[in-house]
Amino acid sequence: MIVTANQTKNTVKEPRITLVGAGPGDAELITVKGIKALQTADVVLYDALVNEELLDFAPAHATKVYVGKRSGDHSYSQEAVNKLMIDYAINYGHVVRLKGGDPFVFGRGYEELDHAASYSIPAQVIPGISSSIGVPGLQQIPVTHRGLSESFWVVTGTTASGNISPDLFEAAKSKATVVVLMGLHKLAEIAEIFKQQGKHRLPVAVIQSGSTAQEKVVIGVVNTIVELAEENKVQSPAMLVFGDVVSLHPKFQPIREFYDIVAQE
Amino acid sequence: MIVTANQTKNTVKEPRITLVGAGPGDAELITVKGIKALQTADVVLYDALVNEELLDFAPAHATKVYVGKRSGDHSYSQEAVNKLMIDYAINYGHVVRLKGGDPFVFGRGYEELDHAASYSIPAQVIPGISSSIGVPGLQQIPVTHRGLSESFWVVTGTTASGNISPDLFEAAKSKATVVVLMGLHKLAEIAEIFKQQGKHRLPVAVIQSGSTAQEKVVIGVVNTIVELAEENKVQSPAMLVFGDVVSLHPKFQPIREFYDIVAQE
Repeated sequence: MIVTANQTKNTVKEPRITLVGAGPGDAELITVKGIKALQTADVVLYDALVNEELLDFAPAHATKVYVGKRSGDHSYSQEAVNKLMIDYAINYGHVVRLKGGDPFVFGRGYEELDHAASYSIPAQVIPGISSSIGVPGLQQIPVTHRGLSESFWVVTGTTASGNISPDLFEAAKSKATVVVLMGLHKLAEIAEIFKQQGKHRLPVAVIQSGSTAQEKVVIGVVNTIVELAEENKVQSPAMLVFGDVVSLHPKFQPIREFYDIVAQE
Repeated sequence: MIVTANQTKNTVKEPRITLVGAGPGDAELITVKGIKALQTADVVLYDALVNEELLDFAPAHATKVYVGKRSGDHSYSQEAVNKLMIDYAINYGHVVRLKGGDPFVFGRGYEELDHAASYSIPAQVIPGISSSIGVPGLQQIPVTHRGLSESFWVVTGTTASGNISPDLFEAAKSKATVVVLMGLHKLAEIAEIFKQQGKHRLPVAVIQSGSTAQEKVVIGVVNTIVELAEENKVQSPAMLVFGDVVSLHPKFQPIREFYDIVAQE
C-alpha cells in the first residue's frame, strides 16, 4: 500500500508543546485558552501545585503524568522533565506542560522552551494567574494602591543556591509592595532583613494555599509575623506580602487599634 | 396578596459586585471563573482595554456600560464609575466590573471595593492575567530566569501626580527585571534613568497591544530603544521590559552579534 502524505498526516501527529499556567490552585482560575489547550492534549505533564481536576479537561485517551517536585522528593529533576517532554511530543504529538501559577514566575518555563527549541519542536506559552498577584487579590489585598504603593516587587525565597536572593535585601529597602514566593521556611531570616531597615511595624501577610479550600491567612507586622505564623501552624506552600497595602485587610484593624493605644499611653 | 419571603427573593435581586480581571486583551485569556461571573451579570461596567467579545458571555438582558477612561477623555471619572457601580447594584442586582489585566495592578480596584463596602454591598474579586507577566510571557520573555533574573519589579509610568514614580529610580538600580506599565509616553525620560546607572546596553523590549491582533514588539538596548520605538511607530497601550531576560528573545540575536563585532574591533 502506498501511504499518501495525507494519510501520514492523519496517523503521525506533529510534535508540539504548550506551556500552560494553571493558576494558583482553584481550578476555575485557569484561562479559557488553557482549557482549550488541554482539550487537544495527547499528553499532560503536570506539577505538584496543579489542581488535578484540570486533568479532566484533557481527552480520555491522553496520558497524564505527574512530574511534581517537592522538598525531599527529587524523582523528577528538571532534566528528566525536559527529556520526558521531548520523548512524549515525538511519540504522541501535543504535550501540554501544565505548571502552577504562571510558567515564567520562578517556574523554569524558559528552560523547557529552550529545550524544545533545541529539538526544533514548536512551543507555545499560555500565561496563568500568578499567585504573586492573584492570591493577595483574592484576599482583597491590592499589590498597588494610590497613596500606599506605586509598585510591587516579586522575589523568590528559594533561589537555586539555597541562599536568600540579594534582591530581597534591596527589596526590603524599597517602597514597593514586596511579595515573596516560596519563602515560608525562611520567614524568620526574611523578617530580620526588614527589621534591619527599621521596618518593625511594616504590615505583613502570610497566605497558605491561596485560592484553595486549605487557604489560611495570617496578618501581622514584621515584629510579630514569625510568632503568628507558628501559632497558626502555617504550612507550605505559602507566600509572604510585605507592605502598607496589607493594612487594608480587615484582620489588620485590631493591630492598628493596638498600636494606636500604645501610642497614646 | 401577601408577598412571602420566597417571592420577594425571586423578584428583588440582592445587590452584589464582582471585580473581574479581563486579562491583557485576547478574549481567551480571561479565567473560567471570570466567564462564570459574566454569565450571571445583570450589569457589566467595562473599561477601555477590555476585549468587547467578552460582553457576549453576559446574558442578553444584561446592561453593558462602557466606562473607559482614555487620555483626554475624562467623561467617566473614578468617582463617576464608583457611583454608577452602586446605583446599578442597588437597582439591578449583580454588577460585574470588568477591568483590563488584573483589577489590582494599577487598576484602582481597591477604591471600588472600598466604595462598595461603604454601602455594605458584598464584593468579590476574580484575578486576571496581568499584562506585566503575561504579555512578555506570550513573547517568550520570562520575567524570571535562572542566571539572568531572580526577581521582577512592576512599576507604573503614569502616577497620579503625572511624574515618574520615585520607585522607578530605585528599580533602575536593581538587578530585578523591571516592567513599566503605561510608560511609553515617558520612554525617553525612563531610558535616561537607566543610562544614569550606566546601563546603556541593558536589553529592553517595548510591546504594544500585547496578546491582540495589533501586537507589535520592538527589541533593543537602553541606548537605542527610543529611536527604535519611534521608527516602528509604537503606540499606546504599550509596556516596557528592562532586563537581561529580554536578551532571550529571538530579535535580540542580531543585537548581540553587533556588539560582539564592535567588541572585537
